[in-house]
Amino acid sequence: MRAISITVGRPGAALRDVPEPQRRRGEVLLRTLYTGICGTDRGLVNNQLPFARPPPGSGDLIIGHEALARVEDVDPGTRLRKGSLVVPMVRRPGKCLNCLVGRQDNCSDGDFVEAGIRGLDGFMRDYFTDDPTYLVRVDDESLGMLAVLAEPLKNVVKAYDVYDLVSRRSIPNCRDGSRSCLTVTIAGAGPIGMLFAMLFSSIGMDVKMFSRHDPEGRLAELASRMGAEYFLREDRSKQLPQSDVFVETTGSPEVAMDGIRALRPNGVAILFGTAPGGSEPLTGQDVIDIVERNITIIGTVDGAKEHYIRALNYLSSWKDSYPGVLKSMITSVVKPEESLDVLARRPAGEIKTVIDWQ
Amino acid sequence: MRAISITVGRPGAALRDVPEPQRRRGEVLLRTLYTGICGTDRGLVNNQLPFARPPPGSGDLIIGHEALARVEDVDPGTRLRKGSLVVPMVRRPGKCLNCLVGRQDNCSDGDFVEAGIRGLDGFMRDYFTDDPTYLVRVDDESLGMLAVLAEPLKNVVKAYDVYDLVSRRSIPNCRDGSRSCLTVTIAGAGPIGMLFAMLFSSIGMDVKMFSRHDPEGRLAELASRMGAEYFLREDRSKQLPQSDVFVETTGSPEVAMDGIRALRPNGVAILFGTAPGGSEPLTGQDVIDIVERNITIIGTVDGAKEHYIRALNYLSSWKDSYPGVLKSMITSVVKPEESLDVLARRPAGEIKTVIDWQ
Amino acid sequence: MRAISITVGRPGAALRDVPEPQRRRGEVLLRTLYTGICGTDRGLVNNQLPFARPPPGSGDLIIGHEALARVEDVDPGTRLRKGSLVVPMVRRPGKCLNCLVGRQDNCSDGDFVEAGIRGLDGFMRDYFTDDPTYLVRVDDESLGMLAVLAEPLKNVVKAYDVYDLVSRRSIPNCRDGSRSCLTVTIAGAGPIGMLFAMLFSSIGMDVKMFSRHDPEGRLAELASRMGAEYFLREDRSKQLPQSDVFVETTGSPEVAMDGIRALRPNGVAILFGTAPGGSEPLTGQDVIDIVERNITIIGTVDGAKEHYIRALNYLSSWKDSYPGVLKSMITSVVKPEESLDVLARRPAGEIKTVIDWQ
Amino acid sequence: MRAISITVGRPGAALRDVPEPQRRRGEVLLRTLYTGICGTDRGLVNNQLPFARPPPGSGDLIIGHEALARVEDVDPGTRLRKGSLVVPMVRRPGKCLNCLVGRQDNCSDGDFVEAGIRGLDGFMRDYFTDDPTYLVRVDDESLGMLAVLAEPLKNVVKAYDVYDLVSRRSIPNCRDGSRSCLTVTIAGAGPIGMLFAMLFSSIGMDVKMFSRHDPEGRLAELASRMGAEYFLREDRSKQLPQSDVFVETTGSPEVAMDGIRALRPNGVAILFGTAPGGSEPLTGQDVIDIVERNITIIGTVDGAKEHYIRALNYLSSWKDSYPGVLKSMITSVVKPEESLDVLARRPAGEIKTVIDWQ
Repeated sequence: MRAISITVGRPGAALRDVPEPQRRRGEVLLRTLYTGICGTDRGLVNNQLPFARPPPGSGDLIIGHEALARVEDVDPGTRLRKGSLVVPMVRRPGKCLNCLVGRQDNCSDGDFVEAGIRGLDGFMRDYFTDDPTYLVRVDDESLGMLAVLAEPLKNVVKAYDVYDLVSRRSIPNCRDGSRSCLTVTIAGAGPIGMLFAMLFSSIGMDVKMFSRHDPEGRLAELASRMGAEYFLREDRSKQLPQSDVFVETTGSPEVAMDGIRALRPNGVAILFGTAPGGSEPLTGQDVIDIVERNITIIGTVDGAKEHYIRALNYLSSWKDSYPGVLKSMITSVVKPEESLDVLARRPAGEIKTVIDWQ
Repeated sequence: MRAISITVGRPGAALRDVPEPQRRRGEVLLRTLYTGICGTDRGLVNNQLPFARPPPGSGDLIIGHEALARVEDVDPGTRLRKGSLVVPMVRRPGKCLNCLVGRQDNCSDGDFVEAGIRGLDGFMRDYFTDDPTYLVRVDDESLGMLAVLAEPLKNVVKAYDVYDLVSRRSIPNCRDGSRSCLTVTIAGAGPIGMLFAMLFSSIGMDVKMFSRHDPEGRLAELASRMGAEYFLREDRSKQLPQSDVFVETTGSPEVAMDGIRALRPNGVAILFGTAPGGSEPLTGQDVIDIVERNITIIGTVDGAKEHYIRALNYLSSWKDSYPGVLKSMITSVVKPEESLDVLARRPAGEIKTVIDWQ
Repeated sequence: MRAISITVGRPGAALRDVPEPQRRRGEVLLRTLYTGICGTDRGLVNNQLPFARPPPGSGDLIIGHEALARVEDVDPGTRLRKGSLVVPMVRRPGKCLNCLVGRQDNCSDGDFVEAGIRGLDGFMRDYFTDDPTYLVRVDDESLGMLAVLAEPLKNVVKAYDVYDLVSRRSIPNCRDGSRSCLTVTIAGAGPIGMLFAMLFSSIGMDVKMFSRHDPEGRLAELASRMGAEYFLREDRSKQLPQSDVFVETTGSPEVAMDGIRALRPNGVAILFGTAPGGSEPLTGQDVIDIVERNITIIGTVDGAKEHYIRALNYLSSWKDSYPGVLKSMITSVVKPEESLDVLARRPAGEIKTVIDWQ
Repeated sequence: MRAISITVGRPGAALRDVPEPQRRRGEVLLRTLYTGICGTDRGLVNNQLPFARPPPGSGDLIIGHEALARVEDVDPGTRLRKGSLVVPMVRRPGKCLNCLVGRQDNCSDGDFVEAGIRGLDGFMRDYFTDDPTYLVRVDDESLGMLAVLAEPLKNVVKAYDVYDLVSRRSIPNCRDGSRSCLTVTIAGAGPIGMLFAMLFSSIGMDVKMFSRHDPEGRLAELASRMGAEYFLREDRSKQLPQSDVFVETTGSPEVAMDGIRALRPNGVAILFGTAPGGSEPLTGQDVIDIVERNITIIGTVDGAKEHYIRALNYLSSWKDSYPGVLKSMITSVVKPEESLDVLARRPAGEIKTVIDWQ
């Protein structure tokens, strides 16, 4: 069968022929239908991620962590049945207290593995076997390929949960009992920025999203279809609007600080993006403002099984609440044989590229 | 225009001709599309609810509190536009601390009004005007008539929130990071029971639902379509299965105690149903079990604007995750002219009856 | 050395001579200074508790679970030193998720042991050895014998935490930012009732406490010294005052229902007391009131190490905030040789009897 | 009577003779016993605080916001009586949602006043009148002058509450059910740093505190008496130890970033100190670490009435748990007539200077 793998420590990916996996008792045999491509995949292919790690005893790593798969074979008597659609989880637990209770997204000692990233083969292959513990059933089969967005969205759902918890340190809602008076500004209009925008829009908040390029106004149009506003911010000379929540998805410390400085009292900044470069001074005045305004800054990574489950519910809802938006986010679908180029370099105008394994 | 009203203190409802309302500045003029009928409406029509109250200065009360309406006229510059679909809120705030922050669902002094129930005319009329504060926009217009379920569902969403908060007094999830190992038993298979079942099913919990009659197995079939299990419980001789969550929607104290007694450690009972009769001893052994097992019992009523908003998101998702289920819950659609009988007496096999005002 | 033990399944306790324990590596050798006597001890001595269980391989159980001890010997390099004062924990974890994270007070499968109660010898002996995990250091050595109250108080601190969590489902405080406008009624004026009264009084709530007898007005006087109010309630004909929190420490279902019925909207009932007898109807109207008023009823048992730690902090504070109150709660101090009678029967006027092992 | 005031906009303070205030109905007349001096007072006296503001209609501002006072006169029928000791609150509410519910510490629009700082006269005068809403009764009268620490401590108690809330996004405790395995590092050993150290030590956490000077080893000795560890850090070349919580009380952005960089996964940084100068780059790698480790950074200011109440409870407990520590923190007591110098310049070795008004 086909598999896309890298040799850890060397740039480049290859589509190889590998043996089909054998299902053991208790495991599920899965047919990969779609895999999404994200920045982490490109980082792996270009040998830029120091934490990349092959499975024990191997030098190669099959990549791919955003997937939709179909159950091919499973022990009788479980919830999953042949034909069930599932999204497999990326991170698998170690032995810390958070991992023990299924919250490896909050792993406190780094002792975890991640499918397609560190220590475990990923899903860019025709078939794989897995423990049902790490498979999330897709109830809404009409989602089809869109279910591949559940993996990136689960990060957003967890980030929202942390924000929601933190927001309860003061009155979290407006006079009308909703969050309709609150504004969120989102830095970055890639898939993660878009998913954050949909989530905050769906609870009635006023959403503004920006990035540095909007070829042909497509981002502005997508934003407007989800009830949000898009603005171009080509450089930092353009001041950010004041907001109650700021979401940073680009990894730029300059953008992060710009957003934190524009927060209103009790504001929350969510840092999700990561990128190695850049630098921006944190000044005494910044500290004063963070303190005097009761600002909270949240770094957040990954998500738990409950976030995958809720991510699928959101996709199911947004498919109709924001007609065409999710579909428009998948800007290209390629075959495995055509995927090596797009795995190495992000094509212009891409929001999300998906590999179709069928 | 048409309106269905009661004379408070006397049984019976009438379809009357009343003047169209005049929109004032700041208000929204609305065309009623659909109104749902629930037990409270029948209680009002049959003069069984001691808290029924007409608007000040009137003896009559226009009933109806589950509605979907279309904006006909609105001031420019607001979020709502002519043609927007909205669900109006039932309860309007008084002056207590909870009301001041838009949480009149938690009103602490009873100083509130409720459209169609106490102190304020309801939505069973062709047109009404309202303050936009109390209107919830429907983003997914494909919901159509199903949006009328947002009002009952908002109660369920609030109840879930209280459960979710309480569940955090111990580890709320299973070893896999979801609630998949938890069982919920739901007493009652009316609209509220069904909506609870869908909500708990959508987060992956194991849902069992029961009632005393299931003509033609329709409830069992609906349950199975939402991944839940239905069982007949014709009388109390049938023991309830053990569960982590128990939801009571019938108002029976006997059923409530049966469910509480079947709770596992850290279990939560949600009491939502209300009905005047019945009685069941709370014994010393019951108290011991509640204490030793860290059981929590939650009474919960109404919901806030945020719960309406999330209710609409859930409907949008369930429409596709549980195909046909929501639609099947609307067992009959009648014209206002045909509605007086069904307002007085629940037809056999009804889950939800809707009045179509168009 | 001396030890007080029972033969499980037979009434009566004996003061016996048993071998001194040998400390193993990693363990701490402890000298028992004081042990408190509570209703559970009397239940054990009178063979009334079905869950009593000797350690594996034994028919006898050394009782005693409220203790203050002094470290006699310990491995070097730990936080505890020879001479440190400690309170040992009662419940020891099993293997459920809550136990795994040190929250055996929320054990979900009953797979725990309790020193002096089920499956593990207790502290009514001159010396014992223990794992430092289950020893809570007493920072305020001026507490002396009063530290023996930390064990019952840890239950109260946990109960408060659950109440505090639940109270956040609505605005938990008053217009002044404290809980000064809230009233709590406490049923029972034994040690647990008294400790609840001090805890709620110390956060500024209006505390009322009642019981059926107040010989010589001593309870009223103690209450007033902690800023609380005591009232006699000789039978149920006396209506309970309305309150925001109701605490039941007697185990009577009649009293529990009386208190629940007197709760204001958003009120919380804390059930802590257990007693086998009694019965009171839960009616349809009760269910209506619980639902319509958003009432929550909490059963709560035991407490975690963090609650022991905070219990000791509270004792340290109350010693001076409520001068003489804690001391007055210890109504009698006896030698082990004199304790068998008082272990079998509660003396009139007792609040807490303590055994002095020195 | 005597009062210490500044003329806003000009450096310098004066001890002046002003008329005694007249108590109006509903108000309380208070005799000031002690006032503490903090950095804000010195900032006001040296005309360095841009937000300083006299009461409406005045150019002068009576300073002082840390106080202990005795009730001299009060309407009958209130909780306070002649002779009661009280701590007055600093911040008084505006009209935002948080202010409406008594949480002006979270004011969302800046529309508040602060006694002795902005818009309202403070407590450095022989007598003042106040609304009982803003007076916190001192139950433990044995605290005496130490009660003046309740005002700075209330900030710490609120900061702890926010930390505690945030900590619940992952498992907040250790395997033993307490926080004993967690380390907190505190930057700054002034009164606020000391109070943070006592609070975290009292819940069993491992506390390390540092500053740049420790004349005669007094800070190290105080730290050890509260079970904490003090270390000198004369410059940034000394790396900070890894910790789970980092508390910044100096306002230095360099120190803040050093502490954030030393946080373990799920770590929390509490920013409390403010100072105008300094700057430290936030780099791309910093953002990566904040994200990948689920770090949260909390800015927090002021506290609500509930925090004052709990601050007094803590003081009462620490007085005996850490014998002599609180007393040693008050390094000097002066008469109003001797206070102008110390109000202008911090004396070497000062932790807290108190003015005795009696």
